[in-house]
Formats: sequence, C-alpha cells, structure tokens
Amino acid sequence: MTGSFEERVAATVAAVRPADAAAMAAARQRQARLTKPPGSLGALEDLSVRLAGIAGVCPPPLPEPAALAIFAGDHGVHAAGVTPWPQEVTGQMVANFLAGGAVVNAFARQVGAAVTVVDVGVAGPLPAAPDLRDLRVRPGTGNLLTGPAMSRDEAVQALAAGITVAGELCDGGARILLCGDMGIANTTPSAALVAAFTGTAPGAVTGRGTGVDDATYARKVEVVAAALARHRPDPADPVGVLAAVGGLEHAALAGYLLAAAARRVPVVVDGVIAAAAALAAAALAPAAVDAMVAGHLSVEPGAGVALAHLGLAPVLDLGLRLGEGTGAVLALPVVAAAVRALREVATFDSAGVTEK
Amino acid sequence: MTGSFEERVAATVAAVRPADAAAMAAARQRQARLTKPPGSLGALEDLSVRLAGIAGVCPPPLPEPAALAIFAGDHGVHAAGVTPWPQEVTGQMVANFLAGGAVVNAFARQVGAAVTVVDVGVAGPLPAAPDLRDLRVRPGTGNLLTGPAMSRDEAVQALAAGITVAGELCDGGARILLCGDMGIANTTPSAALVAAFTGTAPGAVTGRGTGVDDATYARKVEVVAAALARHRPDPADPVGVLAAVGGLEHAALAGYLLAAAARRVPVVVDGVIAAAAALAAAALAPAAVDAMVAGHLSVEPGAGVALAHLGLAPVLDLGLRLGEGTGAVLALPVVAAAVRALREVATFDSAGVTEK
Repeated sequence: MTGSFEERVAATVAAVRPADAAAMAAARQRQARLTKPPGSLGALEDLSVRLAGIAGVCPPPLPEPAALAIFAGDHGVHAAGVTPWPQEVTGQMVANFLAGGAVVNAFARQVGAAVTVVDVGVAGPLPAAPDLRDLRVRPGTGNLLTGPAMSRDEAVQALAAGITVAGELCDGGARILLCGDMGIANTTPSAALVAAFTGTAPGAVTGRGTGVDDATYARKVEVVAAALARHRPDPADPVGVLAAVGGLEHAALAGYLLAAAARRVPVVVDGVIAAAAALAAAALAPAAVDAMVAGHLSVEPGAGVALAHLGLAPVLDLGLRLGEGTGAVLALPVVAAAVRALREVATFDSAGVTEK
Repeated sequence: MTGSFEERVAATVAAVRPADAAAMAAARQRQARLTKPPGSLGALEDLSVRLAGIAGVCPPPLPEPAALAIFAGDHGVHAAGVTPWPQEVTGQMVANFLAGGAVVNAFARQVGAAVTVVDVGVAGPLPAAPDLRDLRVRPGTGNLLTGPAMSRDEAVQALAAGITVAGELCDGGARILLCGDMGIANTTPSAALVAAFTGTAPGAVTGRGTGVDDATYARKVEVVAAALARHRPDPADPVGVLAAVGGLEHAALAGYLLAAAARRVPVVVDGVIAAAAALAAAALAPAAVDAMVAGHLSVEPGAGVALAHLGLAPVLDLGLRLGEGTGAVLALPVVAAAVRALREVATFDSAGVTEK
C-alpha cells in the first residue's frame, strides 16, 4: 500500500509543469487593450496574468465552482504546552464545520464555495458525516520534541491523501481549490517547517497563534528551536522535513497543492499552515508555485516569511489569524474578478472608446 | 426649485446620527463568544462592529442586495492639460457602463451588485437608456483655474441629486450603497478638495491619475496649488469648497454619502474621488463618517490622506487606480463576510466547543 502512495506522489510531482508563457503574454497584451488606463488594476492585472499562465489559455476559465478542503489533524507537540486550547477542540471544530457553524462556513456561504472536511489525523473519534472524508493516517502526530512527528511512510500517505482530495474535488467540477486547516497546536510545526525550508531563525517565524501569552510564546520559540536542533531537517529532503517536524494536515495540504498544480487548477493558499505546506510542495516541485495564489497575509510571521520565499504577493491583508481557510475563501471573489476583467471587459476598439 | 434643493440637503444633514453605541457594544461582546480565538478575525471584527453601529442593531442585516451608483461629470479644468485623455471619454465610458463592458460591470457581476449610472454633469449628449438616470446639473464644471467650478446653487443641486439617487436605491431595496464615479480629469479637483479639507500641501495629495507623465504631473500640482491660492476655500463652508474647486460628481457623491448615513445604510467609499466627496460630507455632518466603509486604498495619494483624516481603515489594498467604483465593489464580499460572522457563526456554548 505504501508503495502505491509513493508512486502517486511521484507521478503527481512529475506532472507539475511551469506556467504557460504564451498564455501569460497574451493576458498582458489583453490587459493593455481593455477599456481602462494601463496598469490601473494593479495587483489584479498580475493576478489575471498568473491565472492565464496556470490555465494555459487566455482568457482563463472563470474559477467557479470553488471547493475548500479543510484538512484536520492533531499534534503530539500539544503536550509541550504550546497552546492554552485543549486538544479535543480539533474534533469539536470538525463537528462545528460539519454543522456549518464555524467562521469559514459563513464565509464560504458568502462566496459560494463548497466545504469538505478531511480527517488526516485527528486524535479522537469523529462521527461519520456526509461531508467528512476519512483519510486518517494516524490519530495525531508524535511529539516533535522527543521524536519525529511521523514516519516517512506516514508523511507520504498524508501527501497522497491531499492528492486524492484534490482529484476528487476537481473531478467533481471544481475550477479552483482553496486550502483550509484545523489542528490545535499546528502553528508550532508550521513555524518549524518555515524555519527548515527558508533557513530563518525560529524567533522570526514563530507567532502567537491563537493569541498565546508571553510565557507560552517563549516556550513555542524554544520548542521550535529544540526540534530543529534535534532533527536537523534537510530542505533538500522535503518528505523528511515533513516527517520530522510537520503535521499530517501540512503533508496533506502539500499533496493537495501539488495535485492542483499537476491538474493546472489554481489553488489559493490560506495562512501560515498552508504557506508552510506550500514550501514543502515547492521543494518537491518548484513549478507548483505557479499554480498558487496567496489568499492573504496572516498575522503569523511565518506566513509572510514563507510567501516571500515563494515569491507570492498576498491578495488580502486583513489582520486575520484564524486559519480554517478563512483568508483563502475571502480572496476568492477578488481572484474571480481578476479573471472576469480578462474575460468580460470591452477593449477600446470594441467599445468605441478613444485612447489617450 | 433651488430652495427645495437646499431644504432637502439641510434635512438630510439634520437626519444624520452617530453610530449606535449599544449595538456596537453588543457586537463586540458577540465577537468574543464566537467559536474562534478572540481577535482572530482582525479588521473584520472592527468592521462587523461598525456595521452593527450603523444599523443600530446586533447582528446587523446582511448587506444585500447591493447597489452601485456611478456619478458621471466633466471638468472645465480639462482645458488646463491635466490629463492626456480626451474629454469625450467620459461620455464614451458612460456608454460602456450601460453596455456592461467596463471593468466595474464585470466586478459588479462577480459580487451581485446592481449598477446605476447617473449623469450629473457630462459635457456632451448621452443616449437615453433604462439604467441611466438623468440628473444633469450643467454640462461639465467651469475651469477652477479661472473661476469657480460651479455656483453654490449648482453644488447644492448636485448634492440633492446624490440624495435622490441614494433614496431611490434604498427604496428599491438596497441594503448597502457603493460609490462610483466617472469624469475625465476628476483626480485634479479631488486633489484640490482633499487639500482644502485636510490642509495638506498640493504636492502631497496630487497623484498621477490615469498614469500621467512627469510634465503633466508637475502641471497638475501647479493647477491644484493655483486653484487653492485663487479661491482660498474655507473648510468650514463645505458647499463653498465644492463650488469653488470640486466636481459635480463629487458634490453628488457627498449627497449620496449623507443620505446613506441619514437612512442608516452602510456606504462603501471607493478611491480618491469618493474619498474627497466623503470629506465634504463629513464637513457637513461629521457623524456621516460612521456609515462609511473605506473599500480600498487607492494608489492616488489623496485617497490615503482623506481616509486618514476621516479615521477610516481601507478594507483592500490592491494598487488600484481605476475609479468607477471598482474598489468599493471588490470590498463588498469582505464587508458581507464580516456581517455573516456576527449573524451565522456558532458560539462556544451553542457549538459545544471547549474554551481555552
């Protein structure tokens, strides 16, 4: 079974191709002919060009319908006291997502995105539900302070779970994928991943997550530093990094991002958890970054470090630090609007508008 | 007739009341009970509190349906060479809006906002069209370099036009209003208005508009400085400021903003034209600011100066400088999402989620 997981990950990585340069050039030319001053759409012009590059055609298809996958997992490092929230909240929030009561559900209703919850590693039992996909690899990671978070085989299995979900959503008609996560304590492995992949000091990538106090924050930084010192993760071995200091939802998100890129479907990165996963995906297949849109700039410092490393400019900057995919969901209408500009706006010629 | 315009403006100004403190306090308390870490929605929490204050109830109503009014006018200062675009483009773009071919039409389709175009002062003839409201005060302003842009009576009539449009849209069911504008050369009077109302130097509030070259930019700054020196507009006399150095669409937008506030309907400010109009509205009725949401931070420097003066934090920062209402329209889903958080998200008690 593990062999087949490896093969699926390898095939997905091999299928990732860079953005289409001709489609991007056509999009830039089209932007210059639309009835507006050149450059006046700012970041949306760049975004529209990138979406054309991902799709390989100009104009690119409208990114509808949209599908959000929330990958949920628990973390052995919770035992190190990195958060005041009990571990059981991961499962409780999964139930909240399934009942439609979480913030991300409200936001998804606003923008018309379908929500799927994927259990890749929640610690406790979860009730069966139609919108819950059970791809649990193990019931939470091990404590990265005292050993690897998971085995390499488990990391590969979680990557494959993300690939499976992306494939199912695209086969179901999704034209854009959104990254979501849930996992109490998961900003700690996120910080370790960002530090490992970017070579940044733990203090510069570790944040206050849900809003921890000074003592807990200091402990988080120490935990990240100790984990890096113990495992010495090698960024040239992305699966090894994920296994040593990552989370099951990080590995699954990395697979999800890779599969989106392989299918040439745009995928919107959320906050620090998805951005850390994006670093792993980019380490496995650098061209996967071409399919990524950074939904927002999280308050978590690791998110900004990761996005800068990836060369991605965030669409929104709203001071969010919730996760769940909230920032990715909120960015969706802006991404869609950028595509609509290319698809629907008249040119100077077609509209009979005089140029300067 | 002018008397009745004056009376309508005065009645609207008198009807503006500050945000409801009790509703805002209730919104803050509710945010703290929602199933998320306190503060984790950042700017959206503040936004939701403001929307509750505008509505006077917590939770506030969902801001749907949304209505965008694009106020169009021409500018005598065009003769001073402040833009390379011919004046006829104002009317051509009105036709483009009515045909659904402009960027703002594409964005409005994305977010589900209805578009109304209002002629308050286009220079040339326009074809009659069902979505075109003819409230033309005069065929373009006078050149503010050589005389007042318009008379006080005309400024009051344009204010009343904006009040009329806001009233019609709200009576038609709109629960949120969006500001739009069209008028070749209108960043020049915008800069003059921002300078006059905030006491900022012309060079700090004048921008490159559609992207003018260095020589034209220098001329724009000189024109703004010369207009201020000639008219010495008194910010304590907002109608006088609008008449001396404003535009017909600025005055109409100011009336539109005042009427939204008077009706306790939120109104989304767009770029520098709407922000300059918002300064006029705030000078007439300071509490009107409580009903305003700043949709985005335009590249035009006057926009940031005006928003800071009003104490408004922009929702988006996308490097836009198009106008038309594009930034207000793009902000709508975020504003609606902020309201949905208050309306739809479960509390810790209702969802059975453990608190830290």
